[in-house]
Amino acid sequence: MKRIYRQDTICAPISGMGGAIMMVRLSGNNAISLAEECFIPKNKSLSLTKSETHRVYFGDLMDDSLLLDECLLTVFAENHSYTGEQSVEFGLHASPFILQQLLSLLIRKGARMADPGEFTLRAYLNGKMDLTQAESVADLISSTSRSAHRAAITQLKGNFSKKLQLLRKQLLDFASLIELELDFAEEDVEFADRSRFLILLEEIKTEIETLIHSYKIGNVLKKGVPVAIIGKPNVGKSTLLNALLQEDKAIVSEIAGTTRDVIEDTINIQGVLFRFVDTAGIHNSLDQIEQLGIKRTFQKIEEARIVLLVVDSKEISDSSIEKIIQETKLSIDLKEQELIVLVNKIDEFPMKTNFESSFNWIPISAKSKFNIEQLENRLSKYVAQFKLEDQSIVTNARHLEALQHSHESLINISNGFKDNLPTDLISIDMRTCLYHLGSITGDISTDELLGNIFSHFCIGK
Amino acid sequence: MKRIYRQDTICAPISGMGGAIMMVRLSGNNAISLAEECFIPKNKSLSLTKSETHRVYFGDLMDDSLLLDECLLTVFAENHSYTGEQSVEFGLHASPFILQQLLSLLIRKGARMADPGEFTLRAYLNGKMDLTQAESVADLISSTSRSAHRAAITQLKGNFSKKLQLLRKQLLDFASLIELELDFAEEDVEFADRSRFLILLEEIKTEIETLIHSYKIGNVLKKGVPVAIIGKPNVGKSTLLNALLQEDKAIVSEIAGTTRDVIEDTINIQGVLFRFVDTAGIHNSLDQIEQLGIKRTFQKIEEARIVLLVVDSKEISDSSIEKIIQETKLSIDLKEQELIVLVNKIDEFPMKTNFESSFNWIPISAKSKFNIEQLENRLSKYVAQFKLEDQSIVTNARHLEALQHSHESLINISNGFKDNLPTDLISIDMRTCLYHLGSITGDISTDELLGNIFSHFCIGK
Repeated sequence: MKRIYRQDTICAPISGMGGAIMMVRLSGNNAISLAEECFIPKNKSLSLTKSETHRVYFGDLMDDSLLLDECLLTVFAENHSYTGEQSVEFGLHASPFILQQLLSLLIRKGARMADPGEFTLRAYLNGKMDLTQAESVADLISSTSRSAHRAAITQLKGNFSKKLQLLRKQLLDFASLIELELDFAEEDVEFADRSRFLILLEEIKTEIETLIHSYKIGNVLKKGVPVAIIGKPNVGKSTLLNALLQEDKAIVSEIAGTTRDVIEDTINIQGVLFRFVDTAGIHNSLDQIEQLGIKRTFQKIEEARIVLLVVDSKEISDSSIEKIIQETKLSIDLKEQELIVLVNKIDEFPMKTNFESSFNWIPISAKSKFNIEQLENRLSKYVAQFKLEDQSIVTNARHLEALQHSHESLINISNGFKDNLPTDLISIDMRTCLYHLGSITGDISTDELLGNIFSHFCIGK
Repeated sequence: MKRIYRQDTICAPISGMGGAIMMVRLSGNNAISLAEECFIPKNKSLSLTKSETHRVYFGDLMDDSLLLDECLLTVFAENHSYTGEQSVEFGLHASPFILQQLLSLLIRKGARMADPGEFTLRAYLNGKMDLTQAESVADLISSTSRSAHRAAITQLKGNFSKKLQLLRKQLLDFASLIELELDFAEEDVEFADRSRFLILLEEIKTEIETLIHSYKIGNVLKKGVPVAIIGKPNVGKSTLLNALLQEDKAIVSEIAGTTRDVIEDTINIQGVLFRFVDTAGIHNSLDQIEQLGIKRTFQKIEEARIVLLVVDSKEISDSSIEKIIQETKLSIDLKEQELIVLVNKIDEFPMKTNFESSFNWIPISAKSKFNIEQLENRLSKYVAQFKLEDQSIVTNARHLEALQHSHESLINISNGFKDNLPTDLISIDMRTCLYHLGSITGDISTDELLGNIFSHFCIGK
């Protein structure tokens, strides 16, 4: 769907600096002729305005009579570019001086600097992508793990939108029939089959609930699956974290947690980002400050999706995991959280061969890295159960909110039918539901909504 | 001139990260078919290997069956690319994850990571540019002022090389005649006209001297014209520096000097970079540490091209500039350095209307910014006298060294002829001279030389 907007010509660098080459995009109803004023192609007889789309030309970038750079220039015709407008992309030597000169040259010739996210906004306004696709561009660029990347690229491909649009279409068809009934209200006809509609409503509600539920894992994949490493002091929690860090060949970063005494490490394991929280050791303490640390530990445990309880294999020899868990006063929600007990220092204190426990446990040696790979496989398996490949995952808080509003409306509609409310009242909820579903993909949008979304983009996106 | 080398397929990012888009180049004898294995164009019937050069395609970048990104792919045919080899450039979403995956994909398919500067090295080996042009690419990218940019782009366009190649050609023609004489040594013929040759030698020597001389200004333009601000304590040196900084709309940076007590500020004035050194005040001091600072001040004054001596207009009222200069024990080489006297605080102590001095002086007020623009014009004028637009400027230490060696050889050749040395001895100097001139443009090159030059490039250049 195309929308009307002012298609003036805008420009901005679209690549970063620091390499050999930088890219500058010029887009708008005057882009090609404007570029022609600043560019002498090697083949001087060439006219950019007559060029086919997707053609690259080598030539001189001229600031009036002054040579600014040798550059590659790509021409994209209207409807065939990222923005949907006629566009030109300059590939230049990545010099801040050249960039500065080119931008001021283009502005002098009549272009203006693009606002943050304006290229993508225009792509949306021109119907080249819907809102969820536009939003996925930012997610894709910031993705640092395979799973975050997967969620973003699935969204970029429009799978999520297609699902939503299908749901909305079904609802819309039905809503039309309801509205029709309102037009013929005096004749008291029923165009829409209520029982069929109630079944449809339930189907849509279930789908939306699945999507709402997927946000938990979607958000976690984006930011990293939170894993709390807990245990008594000196059981080897930090050694374990180091062992995991060293196993990892991918992105590793250390970020300070929200509290000064909790340190988080983000580790990419088999393509999924995990956020490990190495908590203060749990033990009875009378020291007030230590007690505070322990309180925060319990808070972190609550937030975690996976809890790694590290115990010393020496302890295990005369006790049980069950007893240790009791002692540590752990309150783990086993429905929402995964508890894995790691019996550490197995190289120093081998375990009884007949050891049994009702808990999920792995014997490890953090020091000699024994079974660390098995632990990693277990962590991956936890994420794999969500069958990410098969389903659409909501990763965006805005989408979640709209889905929740839609869900509310759906319940209102169902209840309305069940309570035999007048059709015109139900129709209001129906419109609300359609509005919220439509706002996700941008089939319905307001300037405020668009402003909110695109102002968080960077210039050049 | 093309050289033989192993044209295996290499890849590297050529743009920086941090934007919306990043560029990855793949170049070598297998680039296009390799790219085809990872790319599904939107128009599925398309074959990249049959594509014309300079065509851009939109499509899916595939890591086997997994979608990695939507991307633009540009095809450059052999002899029509930057490197001169068949090349492909991917325009991707600037995600570190996608970059990492694409590079490992390309490597898995048979490419290897490009060495630093290897794309430009291949451009040189394929005769797409000579060595001075290759070197200018790095200079162009790092240029931060109009004058540094101008020197680099002039060199990129090959103006400097053309001049050198012309000189070398003239010398080579003559050397051939001399060599011919050697072949016919027993017949005692003279093919080469000695007197004409001596004139030619003088011409070439003069040209090379001009180039050697240009290095002083060339190097200064690249790094910034060094300007020392000196004067007694409290005459307003720092205020002056601040006034200049505030006037400036362009790039401003503060770099720590080589000594802890000398601070340098780089300011872009009317397109030229100036490196201002705010020196410790000059005054008689018995304090050892202060004396050290003053010693360093004198050192900085020696290195400066322009010396700004700031004096207090109050002093001028009962003294002369000449006397103040005597007092400050300034030793300025007026042949090599420009001295400008700034009579400061003119708003507080107006000068006698009949004030005269044999020195170049400007009344200013650093505080109220009176006449700061006039000072800037004066600084610009200093650089303008070198008529940068008209001449080739040597900015590269390697070129300078080769020119100096050529110059030595030329003197030896002249002297040899004057002293009637045997032709075969003179011929050795001639070859030395031709070698050094040829090494600048890379008409003559060794692996060691190329290694030295390109190892200083970054990956992707």
